[in-house]
Amino acid sequence: MSLIVTGSIGIDSIHTPTAQANEVLGGSGVYFAAAASFFGPVRLVAAVGEDFPEQYLEVLHHFGIDLSGLERRSGSRTFRWRGKYHEDMNVRETLAVELNVLGEAPPLVPHHYRDSQYVFLANTHPNAQMELLEHFPDRSLAVADTMDLWIETERPALLKLLERVDGLVLNDAEAMLLTEEPNLVRAAAEVLNLGPSFVVIKKGEHGALLRHGAGQIVLPGYPNPNVVDPTGAGDSFAGGMMGYLAATQDVSFNNLRRALAYGTMVASFNIEAFGLDRLKQIRRHHLEQRLDEYRQMLDLGP
Amino acid sequence: MSLIVTGSIGIDSIHTPTAQANEVLGGSGVYFAAAASFFGPVRLVAAVGEDFPEQYLEVLHHFGIDLSGLERRSGSRTFRWRGKYHEDMNVRETLAVELNVLGEAPPLVPHHYRDSQYVFLANTHPNAQMELLEHFPDRSLAVADTMDLWIETERPALLKLLERVDGLVLNDAEAMLLTEEPNLVRAAAEVLNLGPSFVVIKKGEHGALLRHGAGQIVLPGYPNPNVVDPTGAGDSFAGGMMGYLAATQDVSFNNLRRALAYGTMVASFNIEAFGLDRLKQIRRHHLEQRLDEYRQMLDLGP
Repeated sequence: MSLIVTGSIGIDSIHTPTAQANEVLGGSGVYFAAAASFFGPVRLVAAVGEDFPEQYLEVLHHFGIDLSGLERRSGSRTFRWRGKYHEDMNVRETLAVELNVLGEAPPLVPHHYRDSQYVFLANTHPNAQMELLEHFPDRSLAVADTMDLWIETERPALLKLLERVDGLVLNDAEAMLLTEEPNLVRAAAEVLNLGPSFVVIKKGEHGALLRHGAGQIVLPGYPNPNVVDPTGAGDSFAGGMMGYLAATQDVSFNNLRRALAYGTMVASFNIEAFGLDRLKQIRRHHLEQRLDEYRQMLDLGP
Repeated sequence: MSLIVTGSIGIDSIHTPTAQANEVLGGSGVYFAAAASFFGPVRLVAAVGEDFPEQYLEVLHHFGIDLSGLERRSGSRTFRWRGKYHEDMNVRETLAVELNVLGEAPPLVPHHYRDSQYVFLANTHPNAQMELLEHFPDRSLAVADTMDLWIETERPALLKLLERVDGLVLNDAEAMLLTEEPNLVRAAAEVLNLGPSFVVIKKGEHGALLRHGAGQIVLPGYPNPNVVDPTGAGDSFAGGMMGYLAATQDVSFNNLRRALAYGTMVASFNIEAFGLDRLKQIRRHHLEQRLDEYRQMLDLGP
């Protein structure tokens, strides 16, 4: 097994109704890789600027992430995002974005990563995702994330990408936008007509829906009274899911269900503190413990 | 076991993005009682006007609902509601309301209903709910529904009621409004501080959350590609839940979980057609069949 993620590394400033955090380590690639690291090795392809703080490298090392695909670009600055969550934490707005290195050429993919088997293309321009995909000819599973911006402005490129990936991960509003189908269950079925063998629709605190040729599954979110910062929930969910799939080398429908559950567990921890602070504190057995509780919660008996 | 519901009977006109239905039988008491009837006998206390169509009485008879508490008030007209669902069927607006008999004195409760043990007070003014409750001195479980209007305008009366009931059923927005707590898991915990032993928070297509002294449970909605009319989903959910509790005479935490699942199943059928059209077609074994599928969906394995 060899899991790789191509994604962003960011420096986030986050405002919530009750607290604020400045310049914390974030980005889709970071949340994904940290989450996946609980299940096995993970490679990260991403670029940062020369301003990227040394202590954040140490955080990535803490999770054992393979950083030989991390490009530190001189003359560039790291991606920055400032966002604000509303009283209803499902709603957020972007206050400021500095694309910086994300607006430049995509990161280089080291040649020794060509043997990567499990590939996750975190959200970026679908043309860039397509190009990145070409670097992994030995892949056995490729899954992409996307967002409303590309669905609205780059639909042809996105549709091309969907013909090439095995799975798509996106949120509920994006799934409806992509398929123009307001019923989420039908929207999920429509996605399969676009190419992927499965789609996972993220519903935030309401959990996730999986549609696969063999059937469909909805799992609820873990009921968490302690939500501090939802940033990275979707990426850590995807990281937990892909990490589990890569570790078990089993992409059957039943194993996808378990992968969804593990993704849900990692994401539920991730939102309990800003940035990676909570994931830094936990180990695999914490995930197993919460999963036992979750399994029991969903056990309807005979 | 003897289950009773006090609620409304209405004549609804419903607009959805793809269809329309005029003057269909509806109302909280009707949806609840029809749903509960799959599990055992159910008594309905409600009032209609002299205009109430004979064929709708036949529908209520079809479900075997005990109608000795149905008051047909001469000189009055039946409650009428006209509503419209948006493209996103989770959003609806009321186009017109004629309170009619609902704006008059509450229905009379027959004396032979005093021995009712399982009592559901569907949504109405909390003072009226409190008065209705007095008619059931032998009750072993009393559960109430409520709505944003009463939370906003009749909070003291509602708080008094909450001290007297065992369970509260309400939707997510109402739970946050009642407790002024934006996190739903915390909101649920707060409700228990107001008196009830348990609360069930309905989340529409996203399922339901149960908070009980013994723990909490979130169950997802049944993923239904065929949503025709969401009217009555919440009331049929409550009817299925209470019907199962009354039939099993077990209000333990574990049995509440199963009751939630049955409520979810009945509601999932109810929304597949206008009014009671779908519930009229099914039998208990259809519920069991779908529940098996739902149980399998949630089975994470060992």
